[in-house]
Amino acid sequence: MEFSECFAVWNKLTPGQQQTLHSSVSLRTAQKGEIIHNGNLTCTGLLLVKTGQLRAYYLSDEGREITLYRLFEMDLCLFSAFCIMNSIQFDVVIQAEKETQYWLIPPFVYKGIMEESAPLANYTNEVMAARFSDVMWLMEQVMWKSFDKRLAAFLLEEAALEGTNVLKLTHEAIGNHMGNPREVVTRMLRYFQSEGLIKLSRGTVEILDEKGLRLLQKN
Amino acid sequence: MEFSECFAVWNKLTPGQQQTLHSSVSLRTAQKGEIIHNGNLTCTGLLLVKTGQLRAYYLSDEGREITLYRLFEMDLCLFSAFCIMNSIQFDVVIQAEKETQYWLIPPFVYKGIMEESAPLANYTNEVMAARFSDVMWLMEQVMWKSFDKRLAAFLLEEAALEGTNVLKLTHEAIGNHMGNPREVVTRMLRYFQSEGLIKLSRGTVEILDEKGLRLLQKN
Repeated sequence: MEFSECFAVWNKLTPGQQQTLHSSVSLRTAQKGEIIHNGNLTCTGLLLVKTGQLRAYYLSDEGREITLYRLFEMDLCLFSAFCIMNSIQFDVVIQAEKETQYWLIPPFVYKGIMEESAPLANYTNEVMAARFSDVMWLMEQVMWKSFDKRLAAFLLEEAALEGTNVLKLTHEAIGNHMGNPREVVTRMLRYFQSEGLIKLSRGTVEILDEKGLRLLQKN
Repeated sequence: MEFSECFAVWNKLTPGQQQTLHSSVSLRTAQKGEIIHNGNLTCTGLLLVKTGQLRAYYLSDEGREITLYRLFEMDLCLFSAFCIMNSIQFDVVIQAEKETQYWLIPPFVYKGIMEESAPLANYTNEVMAARFSDVMWLMEQVMWKSFDKRLAAFLLEEAALEGTNVLKLTHEAIGNHMGNPREVVTRMLRYFQSEGLIKLSRGTVEILDEKGLRLLQKN
């Protein structure tokens, strides 16, 4: 796929804007695990995913993490370019979860076009509203869902994303996704194992009873 | 103040857009406690606050509340007009906390102008990014701050907003602001009272030791 096919509002830009954008983006590759954007120390730019999978997470001052959302093919990441808007007052870290090809759009090129293009500004609005909705959903979960339900949902989601029931995940990594300390994760995983829902071994969590996890998640 | 003085990007609209907007907005008054927008059952429209104070809160399916942010003079409320964007997938309730005068902007008038006006679309982006930042701050608080610190911060903020140390707030109302059950609030308030930080009486919380609350909030 070309940039013009991946970028949702390409056809609503003027030829001049298309030219400016096309000549300034660069296609890059991030290895699995690589940090592409590390909070607001630098304004990296916007990321348009060609292939692969990115994880956006929030990092607290005390070094705690929680996964906010994932980005897949054709998704645009705004928050790696906080400098395009004055009002983005929070830090997000973007990490490649799989080998990922993405186009990097320089922030001031994007901002320049957005300031004169209503279609691009409206598209940016929609992207932000979608991420906002993700975060509101997450907030409801962390406020009011018990940890066992959240963990069951997390394991099922990971299995769906990876296409396997054998998940290569340390307890610490799960804690970083969910915003909870490792000890809390370990305790609940052991409980799940004692209930026959999963099987634990070094660095992996194997789902044995998918139906059971689904039931737990719902109740 | 007139609508044109309150609306931040008025001068960046065309005379035609100004005319359309001016002839469609209506000035309204909400009494203290009144619900202006009740989730996404109806698309109420955008609210531009002239005087007073609005509270935006999230209401879960199970009827639990948490205050997301407050809106003051010249603030624009987007989320009472979810229909202007496809990607707003969460419900917010807007309530007047004081007697409030506001302009109601019909959603499809706003949407129509936003689709052709880059300045209005960019302004909408900034408003959404500011609210997003509020919610991210809140999420950090509920994830990782202990309840005593959050409650101390809440009481200090209320005192500043109301301009008094005698707060007319039931324990249930505090719980609805903070997303916690009433019992948890009552227990912590009693602890604060035993420490000499506050004094409780029916329907009021009086702050006795502001400095002590500040220390608690920080540590």
